Amino acid sequence: MTLRIIATGGTFDKHYNELNGTLGFADSHLPEAIARSRMTVDATLEQLPLLDSLDMRDADRARVLASCRAAADKAIVIIHGTDTMRETAAVLGAAALDQTIVLTGAMIPYEIANSDALFNLGFACGVAQVLPAGVYVAMNAQVFPWDNVQKNRAAGVFQTL
Amino acid sequence: MTLRIIATGGTFDKHYNELNGTLGFADSHLPEAIARSRMTVDATLEQLPLLDSLDMRDADRARVLASCRAAADKAIVIIHGTDTMRETAAVLGAAALDQTIVLTGAMIPYEIANSDALFNLGFACGVAQVLPAGVYVAMNAQVFPWDNVQKNRAAGVFQTL
Amino acid sequence: MTLRIIATGGTFDKHYNELNGTLGFADSHLPEAIARSRMTVDATLEQLPLLDSLDMRDADRARVLASCRAAADKAIVIIHGTDTMRETAAVLGAAALDQTIVLTGAMIPYEIANSDALFNLGFACGVAQVLPAGVYVAMNAQVFPWDNVQKNRAAGVFQTL
Amino acid sequence: MTLRIIATGGTFDKHYNELNGTLGFADSHLPEAIARSRMTVDATLEQLPLLDSLDMRDADRARVLASCRAAADKAIVIIHGTDTMRETAAVLGAAALDQTIVLTGAMIPYEIANSDALFNLGFACGVAQVLPAGVYVAMNAQVFPWDNVQKNRAAGVFQTL
Repeated sequence: MTLRIIATGGTFDKHYNELNGTLGFADSHLPEAIARSRMTVDATLEQLPLLDSLDMRDADRARVLASCRAAADKAIVIIHGTDTMRETAAVLGAAALDQTIVLTGAMIPYEIANSDALFNLGFACGVAQVLPAGVYVAMNAQVFPWDNVQKNRAAGVFQTL
Repeated sequence: MTLRIIATGGTFDKHYNELNGTLGFADSHLPEAIARSRMTVDATLEQLPLLDSLDMRDADRARVLASCRAAADKAIVIIHGTDTMRETAAVLGAAALDQTIVLTGAMIPYEIANSDALFNLGFACGVAQVLPAGVYVAMNAQVFPWDNVQKNRAAGVFQTL
Repeated sequence: MTLRIIATGGTFDKHYNELNGTLGFADSHLPEAIARSRMTVDATLEQLPLLDSLDMRDADRARVLASCRAAADKAIVIIHGTDTMRETAAVLGAAALDQTIVLTGAMIPYEIANSDALFNLGFACGVAQVLPAGVYVAMNAQVFPWDNVQKNRAAGVFQTL
Repeated sequence: MTLRIIATGGTFDKHYNELNGTLGFADSHLPEAIARSRMTVDATLEQLPLLDSLDMRDADRARVLASCRAAADKAIVIIHGTDTMRETAAVLGAAALDQTIVLTGAMIPYEIANSDALFNLGFACGVAQVLPAGVYVAMNAQVFPWDNVQKNRAAGVFQTL
């Protein structure tokens, strides 16, 4: 079993820019988070352009799909913004690849106190190795099939349709 | 699907006592870690006496087994010290309960920088909901069956026999 | 010697709102930071409206001055946004009160990794008790007189004129 | 004004060794803490052997004194264990150097949640630049003269005699 972790940005990887006081993207936190997990599973980190998921276009989702297709790994975790996680999951789900693909992200950036990022990464790395082939969203310690999930923006949680 | 999280102590829950400069146990960090995960799955935290797993005796393992037996939950995560995680897993494995029981812990306490605790909690909460009934150890982003796992103390990682 | 700490907002106290992904203000971090310092000096925390210092108007600065005037404490620390720290310092300096007033803040919010907030709070609480009466800005481990300080926005540091 | 920061160990710099579960010394946290402070004052970090202050012998205190004597800096901060901070302060105080020497430390290691280390470092870096020549202990947001300070071990705070 090998594991591929694909970074695409989202809240998980937002970074505070102290010069202008905004949250944006710099280096991914995934290398640090992965080292911190002490994972001994054979894992590869693939870093795609880091985007706010509200800025993701069709071409960006196609690139995520291409990365999955090109990967020999049966287990894939995708770190993604929460706002359009469902849309990317739908693109991947429609492709019906013979891999277990789990999208996750965070409600609070990895570098901010009280973040769920590391929990979610662990959760996704676990279920990606155990679930049958398919595309899933893993948030709030739950696994959702790609075609039955939505973000409840008012509550800040994921739920079924 | 409901989830039970059983706290038994171990490095995960070690707390720095500033009056005497030692690491021991006070309140569990699990309530904070669970809140931080934003889990919406129906989860119950059960706190047993918090022990260094080197101090765990047969009666302590029997108590963990009793908690599993008494639980209606099909998915159980046990937070446990790493040094004798395998021994407790063996006691639970021999009981052959119809539940998915996942033991995890941490190499660095939750409250110390660079801790793997939150990752491991997420990983265990994920696989506990997805694996078939049985007893497993989840560390280093890997799932080990209870009867084929050991801690490599020199390297600080878990591996098969 | 008594110490007054006046919270007025600024980057120090910015809080990540997970529902809309923005940094704003909620409860001040000062109570936590003060508890963490284990200060035994007789200190009072006074919380004024928490503002981004770019949003501070004359009336807001007048309120800060009024708080200083009303205080019996000889040592005062003001937590303030960095962008207009100099302007508020000038208002306080012109009043020529018989108190030692030290303005400080942070380049990275208290709740974000790598924050300078706690260091700056400690620095300011120290020099406020030791410097002669006057108004000072304390940032980057330096003390600046109120009428000879500016923020170098490009470099993200404070310096003399 | 130049500042010298001398690391001698103590709780401030304790590091959790995940292989044996104990707190000891590895690399000092001072480089990270100093970077985090964004200090622009001309500062030099001098790292002496990192010791638990209960293990400090006369020769160790003599080495700290020698470092102060050899320094051209007028402001010196010494990071020290709390248990014998007073004893080292007495050795330095008796030498009556023409420098401002401030000893500080931490009740909780820098790398552990809720640590006072960064606050204390900031406090000491501030008062070391402002106080007249002499030897001081700075803990709990208070400045104590070297010959009128003691650690109240039961309460975990410093106080006058």
